[in-house]
Amino acid sequence: MKRIYSILISFFLFQFLNAQYEGYSEESWNEQLKIEESFFRNIDKTSFKKHLKKLTERPHVVGSEGNQEVIRYIGEVMHLAGMKVTNYPYDVYLPKNPGTSLIEIVTPYRDVLNQKEDIIENDPYTKDPELWKGWNAFSGSGDVTAEVVYANYGRKEDFETLKSLGIDVNGKIVIARYGGNFRGYKAKFAEANGASGLIIYTDPQDSGFTKGLVYPDGPYYNPSTIQRGSLLTTDFTGDPLTPFEPALPLDSKEKIERVDPKNAQLHTIPVSPIGYGEAEKILSQMNGDPVPQSWQGGLPFTYRLQGGSSLTVRIKVDQKIDFVRATNVIGMLKGTDAPDEWIILGCHLDSWGFGATDPSSGTAMLLSLSQTLGKLKDEGYSPKRSILIGHWDAEEHGVIGSTEWVEQMREELNAKGVIYMNFDGAVSGKGFGASSAPTLKKLLVEASKDVKYPYTDQSLYDFWNKENKNEPPIGNLGGGSDHIAFYMHVGVPSLSGGAGGPNVYHSNYDSYRFYERFVDPEFQMGPMVEHIAGIMTLRMANGDIIPYNLNRYASDLEIHFTNAENKINIYNDEFNGFPLSKEAIKSLEQTSDILTQEIRKYLNNGSFSNKNLSSINQQLIDLEKSFISDKGMYFGSWYRSIYASSDPFSGYAAWILPGLEYEIALKSSDRLYEWDKRYSDAINSLNIKMSELINYLNK
Amino acid sequence: MKRIYSILISFFLFQFLNAQYEGYSEESWNEQLKIEESFFRNIDKTSFKKHLKKLTERPHVVGSEGNQEVIRYIGEVMHLAGMKVTNYPYDVYLPKNPGTSLIEIVTPYRDVLNQKEDIIENDPYTKDPELWKGWNAFSGSGDVTAEVVYANYGRKEDFETLKSLGIDVNGKIVIARYGGNFRGYKAKFAEANGASGLIIYTDPQDSGFTKGLVYPDGPYYNPSTIQRGSLLTTDFTGDPLTPFEPALPLDSKEKIERVDPKNAQLHTIPVSPIGYGEAEKILSQMNGDPVPQSWQGGLPFTYRLQGGSSLTVRIKVDQKIDFVRATNVIGMLKGTDAPDEWIILGCHLDSWGFGATDPSSGTAMLLSLSQTLGKLKDEGYSPKRSILIGHWDAEEHGVIGSTEWVEQMREELNAKGVIYMNFDGAVSGKGFGASSAPTLKKLLVEASKDVKYPYTDQSLYDFWNKENKNEPPIGNLGGGSDHIAFYMHVGVPSLSGGAGGPNVYHSNYDSYRFYERFVDPEFQMGPMVEHIAGIMTLRMANGDIIPYNLNRYASDLEIHFTNAENKINIYNDEFNGFPLSKEAIKSLEQTSDILTQEIRKYLNNGSFSNKNLSSINQQLIDLEKSFISDKGMYFGSWYRSIYASSDPFSGYAAWILPGLEYEIALKSSDRLYEWDKRYSDAINSLNIKMSELINYLNK
Repeated sequence: MKRIYSILISFFLFQFLNAQYEGYSEESWNEQLKIEESFFRNIDKTSFKKHLKKLTERPHVVGSEGNQEVIRYIGEVMHLAGMKVTNYPYDVYLPKNPGTSLIEIVTPYRDVLNQKEDIIENDPYTKDPELWKGWNAFSGSGDVTAEVVYANYGRKEDFETLKSLGIDVNGKIVIARYGGNFRGYKAKFAEANGASGLIIYTDPQDSGFTKGLVYPDGPYYNPSTIQRGSLLTTDFTGDPLTPFEPALPLDSKEKIERVDPKNAQLHTIPVSPIGYGEAEKILSQMNGDPVPQSWQGGLPFTYRLQGGSSLTVRIKVDQKIDFVRATNVIGMLKGTDAPDEWIILGCHLDSWGFGATDPSSGTAMLLSLSQTLGKLKDEGYSPKRSILIGHWDAEEHGVIGSTEWVEQMREELNAKGVIYMNFDGAVSGKGFGASSAPTLKKLLVEASKDVKYPYTDQSLYDFWNKENKNEPPIGNLGGGSDHIAFYMHVGVPSLSGGAGGPNVYHSNYDSYRFYERFVDPEFQMGPMVEHIAGIMTLRMANGDIIPYNLNRYASDLEIHFTNAENKINIYNDEFNGFPLSKEAIKSLEQTSDILTQEIRKYLNNGSFSNKNLSSINQQLIDLEKSFISDKGMYFGSWYRSIYASSDPFSGYAAWILPGLEYEIALKSSDRLYEWDKRYSDAINSLNIKMSELINYLNK
Repeated sequence: MKRIYSILISFFLFQFLNAQYEGYSEESWNEQLKIEESFFRNIDKTSFKKHLKKLTERPHVVGSEGNQEVIRYIGEVMHLAGMKVTNYPYDVYLPKNPGTSLIEIVTPYRDVLNQKEDIIENDPYTKDPELWKGWNAFSGSGDVTAEVVYANYGRKEDFETLKSLGIDVNGKIVIARYGGNFRGYKAKFAEANGASGLIIYTDPQDSGFTKGLVYPDGPYYNPSTIQRGSLLTTDFTGDPLTPFEPALPLDSKEKIERVDPKNAQLHTIPVSPIGYGEAEKILSQMNGDPVPQSWQGGLPFTYRLQGGSSLTVRIKVDQKIDFVRATNVIGMLKGTDAPDEWIILGCHLDSWGFGATDPSSGTAMLLSLSQTLGKLKDEGYSPKRSILIGHWDAEEHGVIGSTEWVEQMREELNAKGVIYMNFDGAVSGKGFGASSAPTLKKLLVEASKDVKYPYTDQSLYDFWNKENKNEPPIGNLGGGSDHIAFYMHVGVPSLSGGAGGPNVYHSNYDSYRFYERFVDPEFQMGPMVEHIAGIMTLRMANGDIIPYNLNRYASDLEIHFTNAENKINIYNDEFNGFPLSKEAIKSLEQTSDILTQEIRKYLNNGSFSNKNLSSINQQLIDLEKSFISDKGMYFGSWYRSIYASSDPFSGYAAWILPGLEYEIALKSSDRLYEWDKRYSDAINSLNIKMSELINYLNK
C-alpha cells in the first residue's frame, strides 16, 4: 500500500509542478487539476468488466436481436449516468446475414470445405447457436466453378505482378490472403481483372501458428478461425445508397434521395472467407509456377501461382442486400459555459460475433467513462463544453452509422465540433497506440504522462515511449473506423487511441472468454484507457480557450511536403518542389508561434469575458476548415479534406496530403502545380485566420 | 552472329577509349589490351564443363580415393597447360570419415531418424555407394539420451536469450538450425552452456520449401537434404595441432612441434546434422514455452523452447580423429620481368560429396584459366609477374591446406605476395558477388566493365551494379575460406568473387546432375567468371607498377572508424572518438593522393629501369604490412591483421578494424585508447611508407 501512495503522491506532485496547460488561465488550470484528480478517484475499476460481460452476452451484428439489446443497454447506462440520450435511426442498404454459401473442391475429388470455427471444449461461447458461419458482407451472389489463381494479398500491385508474369486471372477463382489492404479492394481488383469468384483466407504467417500459439492455447488464429468483414468499396464512406446525405428512415418525414440499388457501387462476384486449415486443402493441390519469394506464406509447401487444370473449385454465395435499421445511441452531458462547443467521443456498437475486443471493449470503456463523468457532475464538476458520447451502429458494414450522423449534422458539426476521439475496440490488449491530427498530438502525449500504466511502475507515457524518443510514436489517421467522416468529410480534428494486442479479429472466438484468457485477465487496461480518455476529454472540455496545439500544423506540413517531394523526385527528375506551399508553411510557422504566445498572454492577463472566449473559440474551431474543399479529392469528392484521407487503393492506409499522394500513386505530374496552388491557398487561409485571431486578441 | 560482332566491337571500342589503367605506362597499357583480347579469344567455352564433369565423378573428401584422383587430375591439367606443378603435402589431424552415428527419439516412442539424403529417381548420382550419411567433422564422441531444448541458430545471443528466459540447457540435447553463424560456434556455445549433445538441422525457412521448389523439382533443400560441415573452432585457423607452423608430413626431415591431441581445442559433445523432415519429428513433439517470434521457423506449428520431460532423444557419435594426408597442388607460370612478385589465385579441391558447386565449379574454372594462360604463353604473351594457381586440400575441415601453405611460405609471401584471389565454388549460380581489400576494389569494378554477362546484352558491371550506385556492392572479407591466412595472417591484399545462387550446399545432392539442371544448364557462367578472373590476373601481373588503388585506404578507413565510433557511442555516452586515428587518416588521404599522382607522372615520363620498378613494387607490397601486428588480436594472436578478421563470435562475419569490433562486442571501453594508438601507429606507418615512395619516385 505504501508503495502505491508514494506513486500517487509523485504523480500529483508531477501534476502540480507541470506548467499550466495551453488554453488555461492559471486559475482554471488549478481547478482543472482538482477535476482530473476527482475523475481518477471516481473511476469504478470493476465497471469496465461488468459492462464488457453484459455487452458480449450475444452476437450483435447490425439489425440482429442481440444488437437491439446492446442498443437498449447502452442507452440505459448513459441515462442512469445523467446524460441526455438520443437515438438516431437510419435505414441502411446492407446484407443483415450471410444468406447461404458454399466452398468446395470439385476436382480431382469432391471436398466440401468447412466455413465455421471449431467448437472448443471448455469454451461454451464457441457453441452458441446464434453464431454464424464466416462470410463477407456485400459479396455478389453467384455460383461458379473454375480453376484457381493465388494472388498473395490481392493488392493492386499483386494483380499487376500476376499480369507481368503472364498469368491470366480471367474466369478464374482467385484465392488471396487477408492483410495488406482493406478486404473490399481484394474483391474490387479481382473483379476488375475478370475473376469469377474470390476466396479470402488468413495465412498462418499473418496470424496463426507462425506468430505464436493458437486458440484455445494462445491468442492467434487456429486453422478454423475465420475473419469476417465487409467488402464495401464505394468512392465515399457510409450507406451505399446515400452519399453526402443521411440515410434517414424510409418512413421519416424528411425524404432523402437514394441511389437505385441497381446503380450502387457494389461487387458482383461471389466472395467468401475461410480458415487456413481449409485453404491448405486448395493451396497444397496447386501445381503451377512457384510464387515470388515475398508471396510465400506459412503453410508447409512452396506456394504456386496457378492451380492447374486438374484442380477446380466451386464458390457459391447467395446473399440478400436490403434495408436494415441501424441506430446510433448518443449521450450528451451539456456544457455549462459553452454548450455549443462539442467534445465528441465514440466507438461503434455492432460486431461480427460476440465482439469482445472489437468493438465492445471500447463500448464498455465509454460506458464506464459516462458513469465517472456522472459522478463528477454529482460532485459539482460539470464540463464547460458539452461532451457527446456516440455509439455508432453498422460500422462493420462500412463505417455507416457515424457517417450518416455526420452527414445529418454536417452544419452543426461545422460550427460546434471541437474534437472527435475514436475508441474502436480501444481495450484490446496490453500495448498502446494512437493516431492523431497535428493539433491534438500534444493532448495525447501530455495526458499520457499523468496516467499510470498497470503491471509496471511506469507512467503510460514511459511505457508508450519505449524507444525514448522526443515523442512516443503517433500515427496518421487512415481508414477503417468512425473518425473518417468527422475528420475527412467535415474537418473536425480527430484522434484515435487505445490498447491493443494479438487477437482473434472478426472471428467467432472474439468472446468474453477469449478476453479474460488472453487479452487482459486482470482487467486493468479498461480503467487505464478510461483514465487517459477522461483526462483528454476534460482538458478539451474545460480550457478557457480550446487547447489546440497550434504550431504543430507548420512542422507537420513541412515534413509531409518534403516526403511528397522525395517521392515525386523518384519518377520525375525535373520536378522542383512545391514553392508556393513551402513559402506558405514558413509564414504559417511564424504566425502560429505568435498566436500561441498571444493566447498565453491573453490568458495571463486574466480579464476575459465569456463572450470574447466564445468568439475566440469559434475562430479556433474554424481553423481546420481551411483544409476542407468542396471540390474534394479526384478519387471521390466526398473526401473533402485535402489534409488527410484513407488510401483509395488500399482502404486502410493513411494518406496525408491526399491530393499529392494520389498523383504519386499514379506517377503523374499533371496536377502538381494545381495542387501547389490549392495547398498554398489552404495554408494561407489558415494563416489569415490565425492573423485575424491575433488581431482580435490584441483589441 | 552479326549481333555478337557488334557487341564485341563496342566492347573493344570501349576498352580503347578507356583511360590507361593505373600502374601502366601508355605503351604497356596498349600492349595489355592486346593481351586481354587474346585471352578472351583463347577461352575454350567447352573446357569448364569438361573439367567439372571429370572433377565430380566421385565424392572427394580429403583423404579419400576420389580426392587422390582429383589431385592427380588437377596436376596433370596444369602440367599440360605449361605450368610448373608442385604438390605440397601435410599430415593434418582430422576425422577422415563420419565413423558411426545415430539419432533417435527414445520416448514417447522409439523412432530412429534417417541421416542420409533420399535417392531420387532419374538421378543416378544420388545412389552412388561412395556417398556417406550426414555428419559434422570434429564432433566429440559420445552416447547421450536427454530432453531437448531448441536454441534457434545457436548463436551467442541465442544462448543468452535462453538464459534470460530461465531455460536451463545443462544436460540437455540442443537442437539448433543452420544459419546465422559458423556451425562450429553452435557446438562451442552449446558445450559452454552445459549441453550434452547437439543436433543441427536446416530449417525450411532458411533453405527449403519456404524459399522455393525443392530438389529434384528445384534448387532448395528437400526434407532429407543434409548440410555436412566441420565444427573446428580454434582461436587460429588451419590444422588444430600446428598453429603458426605448417603441418609438414610426420616423416619429413623438418620436424614440426605439434600440440598433444589431448590438449587441442576440440569439442567433446556429440554433434550430428539432420534434414528438416526428420527434425520435424522432434520439434513437433516439443511442448514447452512458445519461442520468441524471430526464432520461429517454417515448419507448420509454433516452435517451443523446451521439449518437456515426455520427449527424450538420443544422439550417439563415434568419430575417430587421426593424421590424414592433405595435398595442395600449385601450378606456377613464371614471370618474365618480376618472377618474385606473385599473383596468386586459389580454390580448394576437397568436397563433402560430389562437390559440383562447392568447390569444383571454382576448380574447373581455374583449370580452364590455366589452359587459356598456357595458350597465351604459346602466343608469346608471358606474364611479367609470376602467376600461381593454388588448389587447396582440406578446406572443408577448417581451411587447412591453404593455411598450412601460408604458414610454410610466410617469409616468401611477405616479400612476394602481391595479391590473393579466392574462387571457392566460384561458378555456383547466375548471380554475381565479391568481397575485397580496399586497394583491390577498383580492380574488380574495372575488370567487370570489360566482361560480358551472358543471357543479356549487359556488361558484367551493369548486371552486378543493378541498383545503379556509384559502385556495385562489394563486401568485406570474412571467414569461411582460403583467403583467411593470406589476408589475416600475413597481410597479402585479397579478394574473393564469383557467381552464386541457390544450391544444395554441402549435401549429397551437389552433383553434376544438380549443376546442369539448376545452376547453369547452358554452362555460360564458367567462361564468364574465367574471363573476369583472367583480366584481373593479367592486369595485376603486367602493370609496370603494381596497380593497387592506393587512395582507397583512407576513404574506407574513414567509414569504418565512423561506424565503430557510432557503435561505441551506443553503450558509452562519454566516448569521444578516435582522435589519433582520425588525424592519421586525414594525413594518409593527402599522401595517398599525392602518391597516386606521382606514380602517374613517373609512368608518363617513360624512363624507368626494371631495377627501379622492382624497388617501387617491393615498397608497394610492403604497404599492407603496416596492418600486420605480431601481437595480433586479443581473441587470438594468430589473427595478425589489425585491419580485418573473421568475427570470433560467429566465424563467418567480416570484422573490419577487429581490434575495435572486439571491444564493441564485449561492450568494453578499456582498450579504446590503446587501439587508437595502435591503429594510428599503423596508419602513420603506412603514411611514412607512402611518403618514402614519393621521395623515391622524385629522386
